[in-house]
Amino acid sequence: MATPLLKDEVDIVIPTIRNLDFLEMWRPFFQPYHLIIIQDGDPSKKINVPEGFDYELYNRNDINRILGPKASCISFKDGACRCFGFLISKKKYIYTIDDDCFVAKDPSGKEINTLHQHIKNFLSPSTPYFFNTLYDPYAEGADFVRGYPFSLREGAPTAVSHGLWLNIPDYDAPTQLVKPLERNTRYVDAVMTIPKGSLYPMCAMNLAFDRELIGPAMYFGLMGEGQPIGRYDDMWAGWCTKVICDHLGFGVKTGLPYLWHSKASNPFENLRKEYKGLFWQEQLIPFFHSVSLPKDCTTAQKCYIELSKQVKEKLGKIDDFFNKLADAMVTWIEIWDEHNPTESDPNSPAN
Amino acid sequence: MATPLLKDEVDIVIPTIRNLDFLEMWRPFFQPYHLIIIQDGDPSKKINVPEGFDYELYNRNDINRILGPKASCISFKDGACRCFGFLISKKKYIYTIDDDCFVAKDPSGKEINTLHQHIKNFLSPSTPYFFNTLYDPYAEGADFVRGYPFSLREGAPTAVSHGLWLNIPDYDAPTQLVKPLERNTRYVDAVMTIPKGSLYPMCAMNLAFDRELIGPAMYFGLMGEGQPIGRYDDMWAGWCTKVICDHLGFGVKTGLPYLWHSKASNPFENLRKEYKGLFWQEQLIPFFHSVSLPKDCTTAQKCYIELSKQVKEKLGKIDDFFNKLADAMVTWIEIWDEHNPTESDPNSPAN
Repeated sequence: MATPLLKDEVDIVIPTIRNLDFLEMWRPFFQPYHLIIIQDGDPSKKINVPEGFDYELYNRNDINRILGPKASCISFKDGACRCFGFLISKKKYIYTIDDDCFVAKDPSGKEINTLHQHIKNFLSPSTPYFFNTLYDPYAEGADFVRGYPFSLREGAPTAVSHGLWLNIPDYDAPTQLVKPLERNTRYVDAVMTIPKGSLYPMCAMNLAFDRELIGPAMYFGLMGEGQPIGRYDDMWAGWCTKVICDHLGFGVKTGLPYLWHSKASNPFENLRKEYKGLFWQEQLIPFFHSVSLPKDCTTAQKCYIELSKQVKEKLGKIDDFFNKLADAMVTWIEIWDEHNPTESDPNSPAN
Repeated sequence: MATPLLKDEVDIVIPTIRNLDFLEMWRPFFQPYHLIIIQDGDPSKKINVPEGFDYELYNRNDINRILGPKASCISFKDGACRCFGFLISKKKYIYTIDDDCFVAKDPSGKEINTLHQHIKNFLSPSTPYFFNTLYDPYAEGADFVRGYPFSLREGAPTAVSHGLWLNIPDYDAPTQLVKPLERNTRYVDAVMTIPKGSLYPMCAMNLAFDRELIGPAMYFGLMGEGQPIGRYDDMWAGWCTKVICDHLGFGVKTGLPYLWHSKASNPFENLRKEYKGLFWQEQLIPFFHSVSLPKDCTTAQKCYIELSKQVKEKLGKIDDFFNKLADAMVTWIEIWDEHNPTESDPNSPAN
């Protein structure tokens, strides 16, 4: 069955500080789609976008103008700013990609259309409740193996599709320093569901998600300028979305598609940004493993507000940063609801 | 680093009803090892083993003679009889393989030495507590990705290595009937850990485990002649070992190595054997998801005895078969302890 383009249902969100020449290589795959470009850093700098792309571009002045004081919850001088694009999109799906990522080839030499594979990942369910040893049971030529309960074969709606990277792996600064020459050359031809109850490190280099299902939880936190930490924006969003997907019965897939990550960022600079995260994460993981959401949290918004309370209560004592982050999580939901009113929402401007 | 052969630490266990011509193809890989062959069915039939292999062969008469009345816990006319080999082995590792499985080739055309890969899987830890998106972090050219907590990078000892199959996939009878022509051609170049708390369908076609860590829980149940069910022997053992590995802090890997599964078994015959299992498993999976073992269960034996009590209490009401199975689980531990005395065991004949 041919996979549909869904060009009216997908926005591509790109955070950047530079001219977007990298889009030339993606032109055959991305030109049908609408791009939301979030310019990070100095707003007076002009960003060039190659001709022929349909896009809107926001810099820091735009974000401040649109959100007013609540713009404080959107990070500055950090890739975390991309979540502004998630907020203002009106589409069902978001694909977000870094501007140092290029088109990879599969083992047969064919160029990989990442977005096409992400769409495939969304159009079949996930299997978070039982592990299928032959990987994605919905893939062509595959199925559920012997011993897989029939009642679980419907699976769960797929909310997140996490793609991978050939060439430069997504390592933390200490690992970068220890293994400066390591390159990922292993093409693993699989898509799998992260089981319910398991956490994983979600990287935003090659990430897609269903805004309708999980968008309100895809907040990239307070990072970069004025904050004690960077490079944990996608990790934070990954842990929050995973516990909420588990609670709401949605699935998270990882694996295909691969893209080509061209350039390792500076490990010393990375270490400066992430060193607090390296020890905070030792307490964050047990926290997220212990998160329990009450039954009346039936939407991603409600779950996220509840999670912000638990962050304040349990993580606030580690560092005051987490109190500020918890407040920013609430602000994020406020602006989410303002920009994404639902018909049944009494606060919606439409009512 | 070269992977050691460990020929003094591995036994290969093969259940069979026929001459073992399939070993010719495995000769370069298996000849250094000791084989334990369990002859199923008519004990008067002579099984031929190709020359040059070091083996011991047991038929039903041998099993009855060695175990006496307790032989009742070893299945007859079912591949489940293989666990007799697990019991009498004196080695650290068991590799068990079906006699319709041949050597597969990797995508480069090289013949796959399955046992070599299983040994590699045992010699590095598992990662059951957090999912690594680049798969096995201990593989060459791989590592833990950004966001993986450092305190979890030691991993857990690997107790089970579950290999896969090219060509005929391990499907249940209904899936076989619906997709008679489906073949598995997808070579997924990955080894991964099944996360803690997740269950999976363990197939014994290409399976290795550490007897010292988990052997007492690798009991293949009551199947075949005189029993209401077949083809759930490995599934049962897989669910029991997984919850016990989770409790004891051991890891379970799945993925590489692949072998070539040559022949689908008869789907109508399979349906007769497995139809009760198809609906019982709907209650077994919630049961195994709910199993909780007390802290004083510090060995596989103690865990297994405790599990047998929970089987009787919770599953006995589904069918009296589970009461008999629970009793057989206890008998299995009795014969395990008789054949595997430990120095500190006061019941050991050595004391």
